[in-house]
Amino acid sequence: MLNNKKISRLDLGKLTLAMVDGRAADSVMDSLDSIAPDIGKYIYEFAFGDIYNRPELDLKQREMITITSLLTQGDTNNQLKVHINGSLNVGLSEQEIIETFIQCLPYVGFPKVLNAINVAKEIFSSSK
Amino acid sequence: MLNNKKISRLDLGKLTLAMVDGRAADSVMDSLDSIAPDIGKYIYEFAFGDIYNRPELDLKQREMITITSLLTQGDTNNQLKVHINGSLNVGLSEQEIIETFIQCLPYVGFPKVLNAINVAKEIFSSSK
Amino acid sequence: MLNNKKISRLDLGKLTLAMVDGRAADSVMDSLDSIAPDIGKYIYEFAFGDIYNRPELDLKQREMITITSLLTQGDTNNQLKVHINGSLNVGLSEQEIIETFIQCLPYVGFPKVLNAINVAKEIFSSSK
Amino acid sequence: MLNNKKISRLDLGKLTLAMVDGRAADSVMDSLDSIAPDIGKYIYEFAFGDIYNRPELDLKQREMITITSLLTQGDTNNQLKVHINGSLNVGLSEQEIIETFIQCLPYVGFPKVLNAINVAKEIFSSSK
Amino acid sequence: MLNNKKISRLDLGKLTLAMVDGRAADSVMDSLDSIAPDIGKYIYEFAFGDIYNRPELDLKQREMITITSLLTQGDTNNQLKVHINGSLNVGLSEQEIIETFIQCLPYVGFPKVLNAINVAKEIFSSSK
Amino acid sequence: MLNNKKISRLDLGKLTLAMVDGRAADSVMDSLDSIAPDIGKYIYEFAFGDIYNRPELDLKQREMITITSLLTQGDTNNQLKVHINGSLNVGLSEQEIIETFIQCLPYVGFPKVLNAINVAKEIFSSSK
Repeated sequence: MLNNKKISRLDLGKLTLAMVDGRAADSVMDSLDSIAPDIGKYIYEFAFGDIYNRPELDLKQREMITITSLLTQGDTNNQLKVHINGSLNVGLSEQEIIETFIQCLPYVGFPKVLNAINVAKEIFSSSK
Repeated sequence: MLNNKKISRLDLGKLTLAMVDGRAADSVMDSLDSIAPDIGKYIYEFAFGDIYNRPELDLKQREMITITSLLTQGDTNNQLKVHINGSLNVGLSEQEIIETFIQCLPYVGFPKVLNAINVAKEIFSSSK
Repeated sequence: MLNNKKISRLDLGKLTLAMVDGRAADSVMDSLDSIAPDIGKYIYEFAFGDIYNRPELDLKQREMITITSLLTQGDTNNQLKVHINGSLNVGLSEQEIIETFIQCLPYVGFPKVLNAINVAKEIFSSSK
Repeated sequence: MLNNKKISRLDLGKLTLAMVDGRAADSVMDSLDSIAPDIGKYIYEFAFGDIYNRPELDLKQREMITITSLLTQGDTNNQLKVHINGSLNVGLSEQEIIETFIQCLPYVGFPKVLNAINVAKEIFSSSK
Repeated sequence: MLNNKKISRLDLGKLTLAMVDGRAADSVMDSLDSIAPDIGKYIYEFAFGDIYNRPELDLKQREMITITSLLTQGDTNNQLKVHINGSLNVGLSEQEIIETFIQCLPYVGFPKVLNAINVAKEIFSSSK
Repeated sequence: MLNNKKISRLDLGKLTLAMVDGRAADSVMDSLDSIAPDIGKYIYEFAFGDIYNRPELDLKQREMITITSLLTQGDTNNQLKVHINGSLNVGLSEQEIIETFIQCLPYVGFPKVLNAINVAKEIFSSSK
């Protein structure tokens, strides 16, 4: 969490997203730039400026919640890539990420967990 | 996590679920008893025996993941009641539970978060 | 499957739905009558006239598929009531209905299965 | 769309939500006040301040999109109540609301459409 | 809306789908022809014959509702392609399509909106 | 259903999954081996050892339920491939598989049914 008193929501969001997954952020924003730049602005301001900087949870907890929500809703492979990388960047271990997915088994069943594991496998192996 | 070498999966699951939410467990199992008792057995053995006792995450993290998954899939008010109570029982604060729901806002939107907040409100006020 | 050559899609659908769950049909159609009667017409014509009368599967198989789909999508308690009753009416046993729900456990997890079990329990006990 | 240059996002959102469904807004905000007031603030600022005031669509179109999205995701009866009322308030007719739901039939099937029709029926009859 | 008194549901549906997205229609029907031609028939008769020709909404409104429902349920990229093209064909502007997706942000969150934006981007650039 | 008294849940599951879709099983397990082998163990023990061997339904019914649940939840193409193959292996005809999907039309709409049909088409043609 950054000291958020003196800077704009937009700049706060940019700094926070850079800490979570800077490379992915640039790529998503570039892609939005020509078609819907305001969505990029809302991602910075609302998601990463307003929400991620709230003091009650740390970034590791926030990323654990985020990858759980993405796994559960399905059809989110692009976002899982960003946030599995983000989870590693803020300090979750590969084992903690896998274990987060395994904890979802009784609540969503095997298919969605296997999908998320496949995304994680691709990311873990590409980072070695 | 319990020392799980010497006891059956069923007993391990019973002990674990008792730690998470004993009263709810009794009620769910009573309700299943006359119609589908094997589902109760699988909840004990698979969900709470196999999964909850894995060493990589603690019970606070597991409940945080569980309430996130329940909020995200929707139509799970009964299960949210059990696991918001369970979250309190294993040591999450009311504030951490609410904050877990708020972290889901950018990923699932307002309606599902408001539903979960309503369930939490009912539980928090009934426990006072 | 009815001999469907000589009668309209609407009449064919009415006869078919009457076989599956006549009482529920009347109630749903009454409820739609003042606000959206065309939806009732489409239920008769498309769902029960066109689809349920196709020769490749029998009504027991069709109801087994239907309650599986309703359980899996969630937020369908009203429809589950109609089609658990319909399943009994076309010849599925209580045990086969429960077992259909149990088969879904590995694919959707416990919460949605428990929801469907609760609806079944209510119906089974009210019919005794 | 209000002239949004001179007032805060919060005030702009409050004015906009008051136009859409003032009574529901007060009730939702009261309910959030004791447990998660920041969610109320985000509803005003982000949903109604940032999004609803964008110039490209009018409020009738925005409410038509909103009730479609709520119907499609399911488990949103509370939100459908607010936005069916809101749809009426911004000028959609009862017939246009029902027809919006009917247009969803080929894309989501009957169960979710019937759920939304039930909510609409309750609202239409209570407003007479 | 076509004068639908004198022609069959099938022909009415074919004419309507040709107006919405003729090229996609041919491709979908060709693909269904060898495996499940009846589904193609139901798409023509029920979706485009019965539903799209109802008088209460125009084709621009119907496509706006359709792309909202597809975005919200997820895992519908193929259908989004057809109906983003269809939206352009019946007169929605690129800006109105993007804005429809942005209106969904408070109700479904960022991931599903970003998925739909990606599909739109591909279509908009290929049509230039 | 195998005589399940004398062998472990793990071995029972392995035998059962081999009967349903041996080649796919090997591939899934190989893929899990380096990242989350316990999930493979749970698939064998819980899904195929505990659930598939229950006596109340036969394997054809279980696969019909499974492909219905996979179609309905969406974003499950990989699992649909395994279980459409599995459906053929346990004795469902191509026509029964297609008809199972068609029965879902009134409950989930066209998009999810078309997705499942596409997966089936690929499998049917590759097995010729």
